[in-house]
Amino acid sequence: MPETVTAAILVIGDEILSGRTKDKNIGYIAEYLTAIGIDTKEVRVVPDEEDEIVAALNTLRAKFNYVFTTGGIGPTHDDITADAVAKAFGVSIDVDPRARALLLERIPEKDLNEARLRMARIPAGADIVENSVSKAPGFMLGNVITMAGVPAIMQVMLDAVAPKLKTGAKMLQVTIEAAGLKEGDIGTPYGVIAKAHPGVIMGSYPMMNDKGFYTRLVLRAKDPALLAPAEAAVTAMVAAYKPAGSEILITRGA
Amino acid sequence: MPETVTAAILVIGDEILSGRTKDKNIGYIAEYLTAIGIDTKEVRVVPDEEDEIVAALNTLRAKFNYVFTTGGIGPTHDDITADAVAKAFGVSIDVDPRARALLLERIPEKDLNEARLRMARIPAGADIVENSVSKAPGFMLGNVITMAGVPAIMQVMLDAVAPKLKTGAKMLQVTIEAAGLKEGDIGTPYGVIAKAHPGVIMGSYPMMNDKGFYTRLVLRAKDPALLAPAEAAVTAMVAAYKPAGSEILITRGA
Repeated sequence: MPETVTAAILVIGDEILSGRTKDKNIGYIAEYLTAIGIDTKEVRVVPDEEDEIVAALNTLRAKFNYVFTTGGIGPTHDDITADAVAKAFGVSIDVDPRARALLLERIPEKDLNEARLRMARIPAGADIVENSVSKAPGFMLGNVITMAGVPAIMQVMLDAVAPKLKTGAKMLQVTIEAAGLKEGDIGTPYGVIAKAHPGVIMGSYPMMNDKGFYTRLVLRAKDPALLAPAEAAVTAMVAAYKPAGSEILITRGA
Repeated sequence: MPETVTAAILVIGDEILSGRTKDKNIGYIAEYLTAIGIDTKEVRVVPDEEDEIVAALNTLRAKFNYVFTTGGIGPTHDDITADAVAKAFGVSIDVDPRARALLLERIPEKDLNEARLRMARIPAGADIVENSVSKAPGFMLGNVITMAGVPAIMQVMLDAVAPKLKTGAKMLQVTIEAAGLKEGDIGTPYGVIAKAHPGVIMGSYPMMNDKGFYTRLVLRAKDPALLAPAEAAVTAMVAAYKPAGSEILITRGA
Protein backbone atom coordinates (compact mmCIF):
# COMPACT_ATOMS: atom_id res chain seq x y z
CA MET A 1 0.00 0.00 0.00
CA PRO A 2 1.69 3.25 -1.09
CA GLU A 3 2.15 5.72 1.75
CA THR A 4 -0.21 8.66 1.97
CA VAL A 5 0.78 12.08 3.34
CA THR A 6 -2.11 14.44 3.97
CA ALA A 7 -2.50 18.19 4.38
CA ALA A 8 -5.01 20.91 5.07
CA ILE A 9 -4.90 24.53 3.88
CA LEU A 10 -6.02 27.24 6.30
CA VAL A 11 -6.63 30.64 4.69
CA ILE A 12 -6.83 33.50 7.17
CA GLY A 13 -8.44 36.77 6.21
CA ASP A 14 -11.55 38.93 6.43
CA GLU A 15 -10.96 40.22 2.90
CA ILE A 16 -11.36 36.73 1.46
CA LEU A 17 -14.58 36.17 3.43
CA SER A 18 -16.02 39.52 2.33
CA GLY A 19 -15.29 38.54 -1.27
CA ARG A 20 -13.38 41.75 -1.94
CA THR A 21 -10.11 39.86 -2.39
CA LYS A 22 -10.38 36.65 -4.42
CA ASP A 23 -8.17 33.87 -3.09
CA LYS A 24 -5.45 32.76 -5.48
CA ASN A 25 -3.58 30.50 -3.07
CA ILE A 26 -5.85 27.49 -2.48
CA GLY A 27 -5.69 26.19 -6.04
CA TYR A 28 -1.97 26.88 -6.32
CA ILE A 29 -1.06 25.11 -3.07
CA ALA A 30 -3.38 22.17 -3.76
CA GLU A 31 -1.91 21.62 -7.22
CA TYR A 32 1.66 22.00 -5.89
CA LEU A 33 1.12 19.51 -3.07
CA THR A 34 -0.50 16.98 -5.42
CA ALA A 35 2.56 17.21 -7.65
CA ILE A 36 4.99 16.43 -4.81
CA GLY A 37 2.93 13.61 -3.30
CA ILE A 38 0.94 15.32 -0.53
CA ASP A 39 -2.86 14.98 -0.62
CA THR A 40 -4.88 18.04 0.37
CA LYS A 41 -7.89 16.70 2.27
CA GLU A 42 -9.52 19.86 3.59
CA VAL A 43 -9.47 23.64 3.18
CA ARG A 44 -10.82 26.23 5.58
CA VAL A 45 -11.09 30.00 5.37
CA VAL A 46 -11.50 31.78 8.72
CA PRO A 47 -11.65 35.45 9.75
CA ASP A 48 -8.89 37.49 11.42
CA GLU A 49 -10.11 36.37 14.87
CA GLU A 50 -7.71 34.59 17.21
CA ASP A 51 -10.21 32.11 18.67
CA GLU A 52 -11.30 30.99 15.20
CA ILE A 53 -7.73 30.61 13.95
CA VAL A 54 -6.61 28.68 17.05
CA ALA A 55 -9.61 26.33 16.90
CA ALA A 56 -9.10 25.60 13.21
CA LEU A 57 -5.34 25.07 13.69
CA ASN A 58 -5.84 22.61 16.52
CA THR A 59 -8.47 20.62 14.66
CA LEU A 60 -6.54 20.46 11.41
CA ARG A 61 -3.06 19.78 12.81
CA ALA A 62 -4.42 16.81 14.77
CA LYS A 63 -6.16 15.40 11.70
CA PHE A 64 -3.60 15.80 8.91
CA ASN A 65 0.17 15.42 8.44
CA TYR A 66 0.61 19.10 7.56
CA VAL A 67 -1.32 22.36 7.80
CA PHE A 68 -0.39 25.21 5.45
CA THR A 69 -1.63 28.65 6.51
CA THR A 70 -1.75 31.76 4.34
CA GLY A 71 -2.26 35.35 5.42
CA GLY A 72 -1.99 37.47 8.53
CA ILE A 73 1.79 37.73 9.00
CA GLY A 74 2.32 41.37 8.01
CA PRO A 75 3.14 44.41 10.18
CA THR A 76 -0.33 45.62 11.18
CA HIS A 77 -2.59 44.94 14.17
CA ASP A 78 -4.84 42.64 12.13
CA ASP A 79 -1.88 40.33 11.39
CA ILE A 80 -2.37 37.85 14.22
CA THR A 81 -1.51 34.50 12.65
CA ALA A 82 1.91 34.07 14.33
CA ASP A 83 0.39 34.77 17.75
CA ALA A 84 -2.46 32.37 17.03
CA VAL A 85 -0.02 29.60 16.06
CA ALA A 86 1.95 30.17 19.28
CA LYS A 87 -1.27 30.02 21.27
CA ALA A 88 -2.43 26.84 19.51
CA PHE A 89 0.86 25.14 20.39
CA GLY A 90 1.04 26.68 23.88
CA VAL A 91 4.48 28.22 23.27
CA SER A 92 5.80 31.74 23.74
CA ILE A 93 6.36 34.21 20.93
CA ASP A 94 8.79 37.11 20.61
CA VAL A 95 10.98 38.92 18.10
CA ASP A 96 13.30 36.23 16.70
CA PRO A 97 16.95 37.24 16.07
CA ARG A 98 17.09 35.19 12.85
CA ALA A 99 13.97 36.88 11.50
CA ARG A 100 15.17 40.32 12.63
CA ALA A 101 18.46 39.76 10.77
CA LEU A 102 16.53 38.85 7.62
CA LEU A 103 14.46 42.04 7.86
CA LEU A 104 17.67 44.08 8.22
CA GLU A 105 18.83 42.74 4.85
CA ARG A 106 16.02 44.76 3.32
CA ILE A 107 15.04 47.45 5.81
CA PRO A 108 17.45 50.10 7.21
CA GLU A 109 17.71 49.77 11.00
CA LYS A 110 16.26 53.26 11.53
CA ASP A 111 13.07 52.13 9.74
CA LEU A 112 12.75 48.92 11.76
CA ASN A 113 9.96 50.29 13.92
CA GLU A 114 7.56 48.46 16.23
CA ALA A 115 5.17 47.66 13.38
CA ARG A 116 7.84 46.18 11.11
CA LEU A 117 9.30 44.21 14.01
CA ARG A 118 5.93 42.43 14.27
CA MET A 119 7.03 40.59 11.11
CA ALA A 120 9.96 39.12 13.09
CA ARG A 121 7.71 37.66 15.80
CA ILE A 122 8.16 33.88 15.52
CA PRO A 123 6.81 31.24 17.95
CA ALA A 124 9.47 29.59 20.13
CA GLY A 125 10.87 26.44 18.54
CA ALA A 126 9.82 27.25 14.97
CA ASP A 127 12.05 26.94 11.93
CA ILE A 128 12.30 29.94 9.62
CA VAL A 129 10.82 29.65 6.10
CA GLU A 130 12.70 32.06 3.87
CA ASN A 131 11.07 34.69 1.70
CA SER A 132 13.30 35.61 -1.22
CA VAL A 133 10.87 38.29 -2.42
CA SER A 134 10.61 40.64 0.56
CA LYS A 135 12.66 38.95 3.31
CA ALA A 136 10.00 38.91 6.09
CA PRO A 137 9.94 35.14 6.73
CA GLY A 138 7.31 32.50 7.29
CA PHE A 139 7.91 29.68 9.71
CA MET A 140 7.26 26.01 10.40
CA LEU A 141 6.32 24.86 13.90
CA GLY A 142 5.60 21.17 14.36
CA ASN A 143 3.46 20.25 11.37
CA VAL A 144 2.16 23.77 10.73
CA ILE A 145 3.70 25.86 7.92
CA THR A 146 2.80 29.56 8.16
CA MET A 147 3.10 31.56 4.95
CA ALA A 148 2.24 35.00 3.60
CA GLY A 149 -1.06 35.78 1.89
CA VAL A 150 0.45 37.70 -1.04
CA PRO A 151 0.60 35.00 -3.75
CA ALA A 152 4.09 35.81 -5.07
CA ILE A 153 5.52 35.63 -1.55
CA MET A 154 3.54 32.54 -0.55
CA GLN A 155 4.88 30.76 -3.64
CA VAL A 156 8.56 31.32 -2.81
CA MET A 157 7.90 30.23 0.78
CA LEU A 158 6.31 27.03 -0.49
CA ASP A 159 9.38 26.43 -2.67
CA ALA A 160 11.59 27.02 0.38
CA VAL A 161 9.78 24.61 2.69
CA ALA A 162 8.81 21.85 0.25
CA PRO A 163 12.20 20.02 0.25
CA LYS A 164 11.89 19.60 4.04
CA LEU A 165 8.52 17.86 3.93
CA LYS A 166 7.74 14.17 4.03
CA THR A 167 5.95 13.18 0.82
CA GLY A 168 4.01 10.08 -0.08
CA ALA A 169 3.38 8.22 -3.27
CA LYS A 170 2.13 10.50 -5.99
CA MET A 171 -1.41 10.13 -7.15
CA LEU A 172 -1.51 8.69 -10.67
CA GLN A 173 -4.28 9.99 -12.85
CA VAL A 174 -6.01 8.96 -16.05
CA THR A 175 -8.46 11.29 -17.78
CA ILE A 176 -10.91 9.90 -20.31
CA GLU A 177 -13.02 12.20 -22.46
CA ALA A 178 -15.26 11.68 -25.46
CA ALA A 179 -16.95 14.49 -27.38
CA GLY A 180 -20.74 14.45 -27.20
CA LEU A 181 -20.91 12.13 -24.20
CA LYS A 182 -22.96 13.58 -21.34
CA GLU A 183 -22.67 12.66 -17.67
CA GLY A 184 -26.23 11.44 -17.61
CA ASP A 185 -25.56 9.07 -20.53
CA ILE A 186 -23.01 7.03 -18.61
CA GLY A 187 -23.67 7.76 -14.93
CA THR A 188 -25.16 4.35 -14.20
CA PRO A 189 -22.54 2.09 -15.88
CA TYR A 190 -19.76 4.37 -14.59
CA GLY A 191 -21.08 3.93 -11.06
CA VAL A 192 -21.07 0.15 -11.50
CA ILE A 193 -17.41 0.25 -12.57
CA ALA A 194 -16.54 2.55 -9.64
CA LYS A 195 -18.09 0.08 -7.22
CA ALA A 196 -16.03 -2.74 -8.73
CA HIS A 197 -12.76 -0.78 -8.28
CA PRO A 198 -12.84 0.48 -4.68
CA GLY A 199 -9.11 1.37 -4.68
CA VAL A 200 -9.58 3.89 -7.48
CA ILE A 201 -11.14 7.33 -6.94
CA MET A 202 -13.41 7.89 -9.91
CA GLY A 203 -14.74 11.36 -10.60
CA SER A 204 -16.98 12.73 -13.31
CA TYR A 205 -17.14 16.37 -14.36
CA PRO A 206 -19.50 18.07 -16.81
CA MET A 207 -17.45 20.13 -19.28
CA MET A 208 -18.23 22.46 -22.16
CA ASN A 209 -16.20 23.63 -25.14
CA ASP A 210 -17.07 25.26 -28.47
CA LYS A 211 -18.49 21.94 -29.71
CA GLY A 212 -20.89 21.61 -26.76
CA PHE A 213 -21.11 19.56 -23.59
CA TYR A 214 -18.87 16.61 -22.86
CA THR A 215 -17.80 14.63 -19.80
CA ARG A 216 -14.41 14.38 -18.18
CA LEU A 217 -13.92 11.09 -16.34
CA VAL A 218 -10.96 11.17 -13.96
CA LEU A 219 -9.54 7.99 -12.41
CA ARG A 220 -7.03 8.43 -9.57
CA ALA A 221 -4.99 5.90 -7.60
CA LYS A 222 -1.50 5.57 -6.17
CA ASP A 223 -1.10 1.97 -7.27
CA PRO A 224 -0.75 1.50 -11.06
CA ALA A 225 -1.87 -2.13 -10.69
CA LEU A 226 -5.26 -0.89 -9.48
CA LEU A 227 -5.51 1.94 -11.99
CA ALA A 228 -4.90 -0.04 -15.20
CA PRO A 229 -7.90 -2.41 -14.99
CA ALA A 230 -10.20 0.47 -14.01
CA GLU A 231 -8.97 2.44 -17.03
CA ALA A 232 -9.62 -0.55 -19.29
CA ALA A 233 -13.15 -0.99 -17.96
CA VAL A 234 -14.03 2.71 -18.28
CA THR A 235 -12.53 2.99 -21.76
CA ALA A 236 -14.56 0.00 -22.96
CA MET A 237 -17.74 1.46 -21.42
CA VAL A 238 -17.14 4.87 -23.01
CA ALA A 239 -16.51 3.22 -26.38
CA ALA A 240 -19.90 1.49 -26.10
CA TYR A 241 -21.87 4.60 -25.07
CA LYS A 242 -20.20 7.45 -26.99
CA PRO A 243 -21.75 8.90 -30.15
CA ALA A 244 -20.64 7.11 -33.31
CA GLY A 245 -17.51 8.65 -34.81
CA SER A 246 -16.36 10.65 -31.77
CA GLU A 247 -12.86 9.87 -30.60
CA ILE A 248 -11.88 8.95 -27.05
CA LEU A 249 -9.17 11.16 -25.60
CA ILE A 250 -7.07 9.54 -22.88
CA THR A 251 -4.39 11.45 -20.97
CA ARG A 252 -2.23 10.02 -18.21
CA GLY A 253 -0.15 11.86 -15.66
CA ALA A 254 1.38 11.72 -12.20
CA MET B 1 -27.15 47.40 17.03
CA PRO B 2 -27.75 46.51 13.36
CA GLU B 3 -28.76 42.88 12.87
CA THR B 4 -26.16 40.44 11.60
CA VAL B 5 -26.98 37.44 9.41
CA THR B 6 -24.12 34.96 8.98
CA ALA B 7 -23.25 32.25 6.49
CA ALA B 8 -20.72 29.57 5.69
CA ILE B 9 -19.78 28.24 2.27
CA LEU B 10 -19.14 24.50 1.92
CA VAL B 11 -17.41 23.49 -1.31
CA ILE B 12 -17.61 19.77 -2.05
CA GLY B 13 -15.21 18.15 -4.49
CA ASP B 14 -12.06 16.10 -4.89
CA GLU B 15 -11.12 18.08 -8.01
CA ILE B 16 -10.85 21.30 -6.00
CA LEU B 17 -8.69 19.59 -3.35
CA SER B 18 -6.39 18.08 -5.99
CA GLY B 19 -5.95 21.55 -7.46
CA ARG B 20 -6.90 20.39 -10.93
CA THR B 21 -10.06 22.48 -10.92
CA LYS B 22 -9.66 25.99 -9.50
CA ASP B 23 -12.65 27.08 -7.45
CA LYS B 24 -14.48 30.08 -8.88
CA ASN B 25 -17.46 30.00 -6.52
CA ILE B 26 -16.12 31.04 -3.11
CA GLY B 27 -15.22 34.59 -4.12
CA TYR B 28 -18.41 35.02 -6.13
CA ILE B 29 -20.72 33.84 -3.33
CA ALA B 30 -18.85 35.79 -0.65
CA GLU B 31 -19.07 39.02 -2.63
CA TYR B 32 -22.74 38.39 -3.48
CA LEU B 33 -23.70 37.74 0.14
CA THR B 34 -21.82 40.81 1.36
CA ALA B 35 -23.79 42.90 -1.13
CA ILE B 36 -27.17 41.65 0.15
CA GLY B 37 -26.29 41.91 3.86
CA ILE B 38 -25.17 38.38 4.77
CA ASP B 39 -21.71 37.99 6.34
CA THR B 40 -19.68 34.97 5.27
CA LYS B 41 -17.82 33.83 8.40
CA GLU B 42 -16.24 30.58 7.29
CA VAL B 43 -15.49 28.52 4.18
CA ARG B 44 -14.65 24.84 4.01
CA VAL B 45 -13.67 22.58 1.13
CA VAL B 46 -14.18 18.86 1.74
CA PRO B 47 -13.76 15.75 -0.42
CA ASP B 48 -16.53 13.68 -2.03
CA GLU B 49 -16.85 11.56 1.12
CA GLU B 50 -20.20 11.30 2.88
CA ASP B 51 -18.86 11.33 6.45
CA GLU B 52 -16.81 14.46 5.81
CA ILE B 53 -19.71 16.27 4.14
CA VAL B 54 -22.18 15.33 6.89
CA ALA B 55 -19.79 16.39 9.67
CA ALA B 56 -19.05 19.74 8.02
CA LEU B 57 -22.76 20.36 7.35
CA ASN B 58 -23.76 19.66 10.94
CA THR B 59 -21.02 21.87 12.38
CA LEU B 60 -21.67 24.78 10.04
CA ARG B 61 -25.48 24.74 10.08
CA ALA B 62 -25.45 24.88 13.87
CA LYS B 63 -23.01 27.78 13.91
CA PHE B 64 -24.29 30.10 11.18
CA ASN B 65 -27.64 31.37 9.88
CA TYR B 66 -27.09 29.81 6.44
CA VAL B 67 -24.84 27.25 4.78
CA PHE B 68 -24.35 27.40 1.00
CA THR B 69 -22.99 24.23 -0.58
CA THR B 70 -21.57 23.90 -4.09
CA GLY B 71 -20.85 20.74 -6.04
CA GLY B 72 -21.86 17.11 -6.04
CA ILE B 73 -25.44 17.26 -7.33
CA GLY B 74 -24.91 15.81 -10.81
CA PRO B 75 -25.92 12.42 -12.23
CA THR B 76 -22.89 10.27 -11.36
CA HIS B 77 -21.98 8.04 -8.42
CA ASP B 78 -19.60 10.65 -6.96
CA ASP B 79 -22.46 13.17 -6.69
CA ILE B 80 -23.47 12.48 -3.10
CA THR B 81 -24.27 15.92 -1.73
CA ALA B 82 -28.07 15.52 -1.71
CA ASP B 83 -27.79 12.21 0.16
CA ALA B 84 -25.33 13.77 2.61
CA VAL B 85 -27.71 16.67 3.32
CA ALA B 86 -30.57 14.21 3.93
CA LYS B 87 -28.36 12.22 6.29
CA ALA B 88 -27.21 15.36 8.14
CA PHE B 89 -30.85 16.33 8.75
CA GLY B 90 -31.99 12.74 9.40
CA VAL B 91 -34.66 12.83 6.68
CA SER B 92 -35.42 10.50 3.79
CA ILE B 93 -34.50 11.20 0.18
CA ASP B 94 -36.10 10.06 -3.05
CA VAL B 95 -36.89 11.20 -6.58
CA ASP B 96 -38.99 14.36 -6.12
CA PRO B 97 -41.94 14.83 -8.53
CA ARG B 98 -41.28 18.59 -8.77
CA ALA B 99 -37.64 18.02 -9.69
CA ARG B 100 -38.55 15.22 -12.11
CA ALA B 101 -41.00 17.55 -13.86
CA LEU B 102 -38.28 20.18 -14.20
CA LEU B 103 -35.90 17.64 -15.75
CA LEU B 104 -38.60 16.65 -18.26
CA GLU B 105 -38.71 20.27 -19.49
CA ARG B 106 -35.21 19.66 -20.83
CA ILE B 107 -34.73 15.91 -21.19
CA PRO B 108 -36.99 13.63 -23.30
CA GLU B 109 -38.63 11.00 -21.07
CA LYS B 110 -36.88 8.15 -22.95
CA ASP B 111 -33.50 9.65 -21.90
CA LEU B 112 -34.50 10.08 -18.25
CA ASN B 113 -32.45 7.09 -17.13
CA GLU B 114 -31.41 6.07 -13.63
CA ALA B 115 -28.35 8.32 -13.70
CA ARG B 116 -30.25 11.44 -14.76
CA LEU B 117 -32.98 10.71 -12.20
CA ARG B 118 -30.30 11.05 -9.52
CA MET B 119 -30.51 14.79 -10.24
CA ALA B 120 -34.14 14.71 -9.09
CA ARG B 121 -33.30 13.19 -5.70
CA ILE B 122 -34.28 15.82 -3.14
CA PRO B 123 -34.37 15.38 0.65
CA ALA B 124 -37.87 15.23 2.17
CA GLY B 125 -39.14 18.66 3.18
CA ALA B 126 -36.77 20.68 1.00
CA ASP B 127 -37.78 23.58 -1.21
CA ILE B 128 -36.66 23.51 -4.84
CA VAL B 129 -34.10 26.09 -6.00
CA GLU B 130 -34.62 26.61 -9.72
CA ASN B 131 -31.87 26.32 -12.31
CA SER B 132 -32.71 28.36 -15.41
CA VAL B 133 -29.57 27.17 -17.23
CA SER B 134 -29.99 23.38 -17.29
CA LYS B 135 -33.17 22.72 -15.24
CA ALA B 136 -31.72 20.17 -12.73
CA PRO B 137 -32.57 22.01 -9.51
CA GLY B 138 -30.79 22.78 -6.28
CA PHE B 139 -32.72 22.83 -3.01
CA MET B 140 -33.01 24.48 0.37
CA LEU B 141 -33.59 22.38 3.48
CA GLY B 142 -33.71 24.21 6.80
CA ASN B 143 -30.87 26.69 6.63
CA VAL B 144 -28.83 24.74 4.06
CA ILE B 145 -28.88 25.83 0.41
CA THR B 146 -27.49 23.18 -1.96
CA MET B 147 -26.27 24.42 -5.32
CA ALA B 148 -24.39 23.12 -8.37
CA GLY B 149 -20.62 23.36 -8.71
CA VAL B 150 -20.62 24.65 -12.30
CA PRO B 151 -20.26 28.43 -11.78
CA ALA B 152 -22.84 29.54 -14.37
CA ILE B 153 -25.45 27.23 -12.82
CA MET B 154 -24.53 28.07 -9.22
CA GLN B 155 -24.97 31.75 -10.03
CA VAL B 156 -28.54 31.42 -11.33
CA MET B 157 -29.40 29.26 -8.30
CA LEU B 158 -28.06 31.97 -5.99
CA ASP B 159 -30.21 34.52 -7.83
CA ALA B 160 -33.22 32.22 -7.41
CA VAL B 161 -32.81 31.67 -3.68
CA ALA B 162 -31.54 35.08 -2.56
CA PRO B 163 -34.96 36.82 -2.38
CA LYS B 164 -36.11 34.15 0.10
CA LEU B 165 -33.28 34.73 2.59
CA LYS B 166 -33.23 36.84 5.71
CA THR B 167 -30.63 39.57 5.35
CA GLY B 168 -29.05 41.87 7.90
CA ALA B 169 -27.67 45.34 7.80
CA LYS B 170 -25.14 45.77 5.04
CA MET B 171 -21.54 46.28 5.92
CA LEU B 172 -20.44 49.84 5.15
CA GLN B 173 -16.89 50.22 3.96
CA VAL B 174 -14.35 52.99 3.64
CA THR B 175 -11.06 52.44 1.79
CA ILE B 176 -8.18 54.80 2.37
CA GLU B 177 -5.06 54.64 0.20
CA ALA B 178 -2.02 56.86 -0.21
CA ALA B 179 0.73 56.28 -2.79
CA GLY B 180 4.13 55.50 -1.30
CA LEU B 181 2.80 54.62 2.14
CA LYS B 182 3.89 51.17 3.29
CA GLU B 183 2.16 48.99 5.88
CA GLY B 184 5.21 49.08 8.12
CA ASP B 185 5.21 52.89 8.12
CA ILE B 186 1.83 53.15 9.78
CA GLY B 187 1.25 49.78 11.46
CA THR B 188 1.74 51.08 14.98
CA PRO B 189 -0.46 54.22 14.85
CA TYR B 190 -3.08 52.32 12.84
CA GLY B 191 -3.19 49.67 15.55
CA VAL B 192 -3.71 52.35 18.19
CA ILE B 193 -6.66 53.76 16.23
CA ALA B 194 -8.09 50.26 15.73
CA LYS B 195 -7.98 49.65 19.48
CA ALA B 196 -9.83 52.93 20.09
CA HIS B 197 -12.64 51.96 17.67
CA PRO B 198 -13.63 48.42 18.68
CA GLY B 199 -16.90 48.49 16.69
CA VAL B 200 -15.03 48.98 13.41
CA ILE B 201 -13.18 46.16 11.62
CA MET B 202 -9.94 47.69 10.40
CA GLY B 203 -7.86 45.81 7.85
CA SER B 204 -4.59 46.63 6.14
CA TYR B 205 -3.43 45.13 2.86
CA PRO B 206 -0.10 45.53 1.08
CA MET B 207 -0.71 46.49 -2.54
CA MET B 208 1.44 47.12 -5.58
CA ASN B 209 0.87 49.04 -8.80
CA ASP B 210 3.14 50.40 -11.53
CA LYS B 211 4.31 53.14 -9.16
CA GLY B 212 5.39 50.67 -6.44
CA PHE B 213 4.08 49.51 -3.11
CA TYR B 214 1.23 51.17 -1.27
CA THR B 215 -1.19 50.25 1.50
CA ARG B 216 -4.92 49.76 1.35
CA LEU B 217 -6.61 50.48 4.68
CA VAL B 218 -10.16 49.14 4.83
CA LEU B 219 -12.58 50.19 7.59
CA ARG B 220 -15.80 48.20 7.90
CA ALA B 221 -18.83 48.61 10.17
CA LYS B 222 -22.59 48.34 9.95
CA ASP B 223 -23.22 51.50 11.95
CA PRO B 224 -22.28 54.74 10.14
CA ALA B 225 -22.04 56.53 13.52
CA LEU B 226 -19.14 54.24 14.43
CA LEU B 227 -17.50 54.35 11.01
CA ALA B 228 -17.29 58.14 10.57
CA PRO B 229 -15.02 58.93 13.56
CA ALA B 230 -12.74 55.99 12.71
CA GLU B 231 -12.45 57.29 9.15
CA ALA B 232 -11.57 60.75 10.44
CA ALA B 233 -8.88 59.37 12.74
CA VAL B 234 -7.32 57.18 10.06
CA THR B 235 -7.39 59.92 7.44
CA ALA B 236 -5.63 62.34 9.80
CA MET B 237 -3.02 59.71 10.65
CA VAL B 238 -2.39 58.90 6.98
CA ALA B 239 -2.04 62.62 6.20
CA ALA B 240 0.64 62.88 8.88
CA TYR B 241 2.63 59.81 7.75
CA LYS B 242 2.30 59.82 3.95
CA PRO B 243 5.12 61.04 1.72
CA ALA B 244 4.89 64.77 0.99
CA GLY B 245 2.84 65.49 -2.12
CA SER B 246 1.07 62.12 -2.42
CA GLU B 247 -2.71 62.32 -2.46
CA ILE B 248 -5.03 60.36 -0.20
CA LEU B 249 -7.65 58.36 -2.07
CA ILE B 250 -10.84 57.66 -0.12
CA THR B 251 -13.64 55.49 -1.49
CA ARG B 252 -16.88 54.65 0.32
CA GLY B 253 -19.35 51.93 -0.43
CA ALA B 254 -21.97 49.60 0.99
